[in-house]
Amino acid sequence: MGTRRNFIKNSLIAGVGTAIIPSNTFGLGSIANASTKLRVGMIGVGLRGTNHLDNLLLRNDVLITAICDVDQNRIDIAQKRIEKAGQKKAKVFGANDLDYRNLLDLKEVDAVVIATPWLWHVRMSKDAMLARKYTGVEVSAANTLEECWDLVNTHEQTGTHLMILENVNYRRDVLAVLNMVKQNVFGELLHFRCGYQHDLRGVKFNDGKQPYGGGVEFGEKGLSEAHWRTQHSLMQNADTYPTHGLGPIAAMANINAGNRFLSLTSHATKARGLHQYIVNHPNGGENHPNAKLKWKQGDVITTTIDTANGETIIITHDCNSPRPYSLGFRVQGTNGLTEFDYHTKRIYVEGKSKKHDEWDNMDQWLKDYDHPLWKKYGSEATQAGHGGIDFYVMNAFVESAKQNIAPPMDAYDAAAWSAVTPLSERSIENNGEPQDFPDFTRGMWINRKPYDWMKDTF
Amino acid sequence: MGTRRNFIKNSLIAGVGTAIIPSNTFGLGSIANASTKLRVGMIGVGLRGTNHLDNLLLRNDVLITAICDVDQNRIDIAQKRIEKAGQKKAKVFGANDLDYRNLLDLKEVDAVVIATPWLWHVRMSKDAMLARKYTGVEVSAANTLEECWDLVNTHEQTGTHLMILENVNYRRDVLAVLNMVKQNVFGELLHFRCGYQHDLRGVKFNDGKQPYGGGVEFGEKGLSEAHWRTQHSLMQNADTYPTHGLGPIAAMANINAGNRFLSLTSHATKARGLHQYIVNHPNGGENHPNAKLKWKQGDVITTTIDTANGETIIITHDCNSPRPYSLGFRVQGTNGLTEFDYHTKRIYVEGKSKKHDEWDNMDQWLKDYDHPLWKKYGSEATQAGHGGIDFYVMNAFVESAKQNIAPPMDAYDAAAWSAVTPLSERSIENNGEPQDFPDFTRGMWINRKPYDWMKDTF
Repeated sequence: MGTRRNFIKNSLIAGVGTAIIPSNTFGLGSIANASTKLRVGMIGVGLRGTNHLDNLLLRNDVLITAICDVDQNRIDIAQKRIEKAGQKKAKVFGANDLDYRNLLDLKEVDAVVIATPWLWHVRMSKDAMLARKYTGVEVSAANTLEECWDLVNTHEQTGTHLMILENVNYRRDVLAVLNMVKQNVFGELLHFRCGYQHDLRGVKFNDGKQPYGGGVEFGEKGLSEAHWRTQHSLMQNADTYPTHGLGPIAAMANINAGNRFLSLTSHATKARGLHQYIVNHPNGGENHPNAKLKWKQGDVITTTIDTANGETIIITHDCNSPRPYSLGFRVQGTNGLTEFDYHTKRIYVEGKSKKHDEWDNMDQWLKDYDHPLWKKYGSEATQAGHGGIDFYVMNAFVESAKQNIAPPMDAYDAAAWSAVTPLSERSIENNGEPQDFPDFTRGMWINRKPYDWMKDTF
Repeated sequence: MGTRRNFIKNSLIAGVGTAIIPSNTFGLGSIANASTKLRVGMIGVGLRGTNHLDNLLLRNDVLITAICDVDQNRIDIAQKRIEKAGQKKAKVFGANDLDYRNLLDLKEVDAVVIATPWLWHVRMSKDAMLARKYTGVEVSAANTLEECWDLVNTHEQTGTHLMILENVNYRRDVLAVLNMVKQNVFGELLHFRCGYQHDLRGVKFNDGKQPYGGGVEFGEKGLSEAHWRTQHSLMQNADTYPTHGLGPIAAMANINAGNRFLSLTSHATKARGLHQYIVNHPNGGENHPNAKLKWKQGDVITTTIDTANGETIIITHDCNSPRPYSLGFRVQGTNGLTEFDYHTKRIYVEGKSKKHDEWDNMDQWLKDYDHPLWKKYGSEATQAGHGGIDFYVMNAFVESAKQNIAPPMDAYDAAAWSAVTPLSERSIENNGEPQDFPDFTRGMWINRKPYDWMKDTF
């Protein structure tokens, strides 16, 4: 790859110390030349990609050298922001679906951020790794087991790193609980819960003019995620979006590094929510063509995973019904447990909670176990989206790419987390029959060391 | 059976109107003779049986004519309470394990309440039905699938009714949510959660002198539930106590009456809690003989049920770890959902909750949908145990027995709910393999009408 270089420390990483040259088992270029910046190509600058773009443009150690999107309107928006940030115009790609490959040919691209429809994630990630670009890919990473293997095999073949850009791993409460886990607050871990419980009806349908709501259109007639995401609900009875919940739990449970997912069972309810939304919408109704569709995805999907270390994990997918947002976390060990979501957070630890068998309010716990990253970067982080978590995920990506080291969430993680989609689909189709996870590490999970989530750099 | 009679209305049922003679499909004796009382035999007067005894002694339509227990100490306590309540001494049984059969031979017993160790529930229930005694049996009812069938088959053979004494079905919040379900607040039902999450370590172990805690003894050296219940945790990796959660959900979902449980999968975590409790207890330690035991029951057991109507139900069994008490209810439909347990209660219903996508505090909802039974009997009920729920379950038992009509929770319910224990055990043993529920109604669930849970009498 030959273009790996060291980077001037910016304000964000002041005090971090000299970047350590990683023990690079794949013989890639080492870190040298302290005067240049990470040159990033953006593949996909829709709403999500532009969000990442904005965060990258806030940094002084990144140049955006190329952008790719098949929608000229999104290219225009991105280009304006790049210029407004004082950078020169990026090279533009998107003449056709495969034009991203020409972006990948550029020498002036060190790393790529892929924020495209799900069905493009692995095709692009694979091509990016083959082109030796440090690769960041949005969630969920892969759609099929073959694609999961593609991520792992291409990473191993090329030695190029891939990071799955799971931002929830950086939520302040999630990292505080991870801190508690690492400090053994809960004792030996037993049981986890997580999921994606988010009313997406106004995301899956719109009027083709605005991204959120206003109609019951999707596919060709839909805009933004409605343009491509909704089709998955029509065609697949599966947990199509497992990583927001599972990523944080995997970090706590050392998945792929001393532990692994063994097998799962999945159960789906009937599918009612999307049909009901179409029928009841003022721009829909019984006679709207979309009212005739048979939706495959059950409204609530429950998946339970067994791990090698004897824990269980419940993942919930609940996106087609009216409900308050909740990722529904629970982390439980032999000493106690916490349950926390957007609205309610509570904890009980034997001998440490104020009252016997009563939940503690979690506010003080979250302060006491605030993660070093949030203590350090909290004010900068909150300038970025999603309560600051997008700052952290991009920071980890950029810092890992600059050093060309393994990222916090790598190709094995992307594969294992994403595998829930095809495995849940198969289990549901077979009446809840258990499905084994492939061991994407080919046995190496026994010896692999967990990523150091507790450092204060990224 | 020949001893069925009508009963003087007491204050509790004033205003109920004349008891309707039931359409008795089994040709049992009808209701006659308006001057006598229901004569109850108590089989098992341990802590739980005595609790029921106390509630029955508060009523003026019940006589306790016989008691049975193999523990003379418990007999003495019960007899004292009977005399204190102004009733004449009950006949006493318990000379040996099968002496309850002599109680069942008594003409002066119309109905029995069985509150004995789990392994005796079905043996005694079966004998009671064969003796034509209206039978109330504590939870869980049955231990094996054969026992589940015994309940159903003996009921059908004899025409004698059996009621499973599930008190949680009468919790004020549970009945208010049932009221919401019946009024279609949640729309078409999709998903339920429930369980038994209760730190029972101090129940499973004691010092043999007091029922709760103080040591790490069980079995021969343990008192009360530690004497018999703990052995199940040692020998069975199963959800051994599913009905406190599942009973209320089954009522909401019309199980066995227009719906039924189809199949389940179960997953268990490793077993750590009981061993750790023994080792860390001041009267235990590494060298205590019980520290050598290998406990089979996983600390957290997760079971997911598919129903004929396309809903899913998650049941949790979590009794071996430190934690606040929670049955962890969730009831979700196409219009919204509620999550409620002992400590936190919240609800969201589209178009009715105060804010879009925000939980409503549930207090006002619980008032608005307060169940007729709680409006009517709330003050009387709170004299009894378990926040009043034991009053309601005994009231339903007595009133159903007096009329010799099918109880709210019958032999089919007892069988279906209890079947979770053997089916979860088999699923866990087979790596989460789905297990089909027997159809205990032999197809009749298609035509059976749900019990009228909304009446204000019992």
